[in-house]
Amino acid sequence: MKAAYYCGNEKFDIRPGTQEALIPGMVRVKIAYCGVCGTDVHIYHGKMDQRVQIPQIIGHEVAGVIEEVAPDVAEFKKGDHVAIRPLQPGLEDAADNGQLHIGKNLKFIGIDSPGGMQTYWNVPAYTLHLLPEDMPLHIGALIEPLAVACHDVRLSELKAGENVVVLGGGPIGVLIALIAQYKNASVLLSEPNINRAQMAKSLGINVVNPNLDDLVSAVEVFSHGAMADVVFEVAGVIPTVEIMTQLARARGRIIMVAIHGVKREIDLFRFFWRELKLIGVRVYEPEDFDEAIQIAASGNLPLEELITSISPLEKISEVFKAIDENPAGIKYLLKVD
Amino acid sequence: MKAAYYCGNEKFDIRPGTQEALIPGMVRVKIAYCGVCGTDVHIYHGKMDQRVQIPQIIGHEVAGVIEEVAPDVAEFKKGDHVAIRPLQPGLEDAADNGQLHIGKNLKFIGIDSPGGMQTYWNVPAYTLHLLPEDMPLHIGALIEPLAVACHDVRLSELKAGENVVVLGGGPIGVLIALIAQYKNASVLLSEPNINRAQMAKSLGINVVNPNLDDLVSAVEVFSHGAMADVVFEVAGVIPTVEIMTQLARARGRIIMVAIHGVKREIDLFRFFWRELKLIGVRVYEPEDFDEAIQIAASGNLPLEELITSISPLEKISEVFKAIDENPAGIKYLLKVD
Repeated sequence: MKAAYYCGNEKFDIRPGTQEALIPGMVRVKIAYCGVCGTDVHIYHGKMDQRVQIPQIIGHEVAGVIEEVAPDVAEFKKGDHVAIRPLQPGLEDAADNGQLHIGKNLKFIGIDSPGGMQTYWNVPAYTLHLLPEDMPLHIGALIEPLAVACHDVRLSELKAGENVVVLGGGPIGVLIALIAQYKNASVLLSEPNINRAQMAKSLGINVVNPNLDDLVSAVEVFSHGAMADVVFEVAGVIPTVEIMTQLARARGRIIMVAIHGVKREIDLFRFFWRELKLIGVRVYEPEDFDEAIQIAASGNLPLEELITSISPLEKISEVFKAIDENPAGIKYLLKVD
Repeated sequence: MKAAYYCGNEKFDIRPGTQEALIPGMVRVKIAYCGVCGTDVHIYHGKMDQRVQIPQIIGHEVAGVIEEVAPDVAEFKKGDHVAIRPLQPGLEDAADNGQLHIGKNLKFIGIDSPGGMQTYWNVPAYTLHLLPEDMPLHIGALIEPLAVACHDVRLSELKAGENVVVLGGGPIGVLIALIAQYKNASVLLSEPNINRAQMAKSLGINVVNPNLDDLVSAVEVFSHGAMADVVFEVAGVIPTVEIMTQLARARGRIIMVAIHGVKREIDLFRFFWRELKLIGVRVYEPEDFDEAIQIAASGNLPLEELITSISPLEKISEVFKAIDENPAGIKYLLKVD
């Protein structure tokens, strides 16, 4: 048993950890791999110190093997391979509209409570999704971010043949582009960073650099004048918010994936004039995990190529440093067991 | 034959007008009544002088009786009572997405070409909607603004029993509130002007004054904590844009009816966090006119009470002055024939 604790100030400590008792409804998972999410990087930078309980085990992109189930858990058994949907719904609020995955009292496991960067992680049985036995567990660790992309694409109501623009070629932007392509959309990804753009191209994605090419013209050419049915805003910066309304065709959907910490100036006239839709999307629902697993199992996505490195848990500090230094990196995995 | 010409500088001239020849596809309508739209008031104030052709006959909220049809027009005949959907689609652009009613080359009849404040108005047959013989023609003149409200409510995907907040109690806000109530939604209208609020109340609408009551709390109480399924932004000012995201429940829809001439600061985080939707809506489609006529014919809306005054066309200058001076006014009609 070992665990990586975030201790504040960009520091992690590897300690033996404590194996918690299994209470009813819970399952003990032996974690094989844990991916590093952008949120984990935020935590590492100290930006969420008011939310995490330092020292805290973080991490929520995991795959592992069930070690033990509480006696009341019938759906899973020792030896099952699983991915974990790290959402713990709280008391339902009337304004939640039945949307438990974004409820007011939701806790995000791995942020609001201990996470998966430890050998044995106890989680509620309802968070588990069975992985096919023949899916390598390092691929299983990609299911959580893939489920984010599946959710975003599902809520965009994307149809085959539609033109899609993805603004921002970070890990989630790339996954959205791949899922949209998997669903037979025509996808153009806009990414100003040359290394990221190159990486996305190597995965078979059409990429435009908005610093070198006029993005509106590029979308016009790409779509033969039709412009975008769907625009995914995944960058979270002012230039993408300024241009997103120019890229959508009449009744186009703009999907707000990015987290904008401050208010942004938006061209509401354009929403009116062209009857555009803006659709906010956040995390995932169970069906998005199911779909992510099915798509990963299909073998049609270049998932191996998305993995920048796999490092032992003990190297966690080096991994977080590498993420900061390499914009072309997509998914860094920690090998936990 | 007479016609009211907008001559710039808040001036109208009544002149004999000219009866145009009937070209193929056209119908000559003897206009009974023409309502004054907010856009007409904008034109009167000189704000659209670059778009209208001074001197121009304006007006587009009309009902009348067909006087003559071109020989190739089979669907209508002399004596038919009609309302007019004043949209003239232009050459379709690929980015229009088949949405002719908001196409790039659309012309709005009565703004981009002569309007209905004249005895005989020649319009394309495809703009006409038959009115029931027993519908008074002054009610028929309300069909166009009612179709705006039907369009806005239709695109909101409103369901019976949902909680609706309408921000802004001008003519379109009041019509949206009435249509939403007609569809069995629970409606709360927010209007700071005491006279407008009083008028809306007298029509059977629940009204809150956001200057006197905290609007978020009022919506909480009104909805028993559920908050709004649908928020209609019809005011076009900064305070309503600031509060709209606070009033919607998770996955709530915010309908952008208002025309915001400048960019506005929007809480995009809230769209992400609660998976909100923003839906731009503009003018109407043929089915909205059909629905407006059906609802008007049902007799279930207090349409007579919406009419502030009916004045002869010759009094047009006095009518526009009265509109500027009376915020509680809803619909001013000109009797044309």
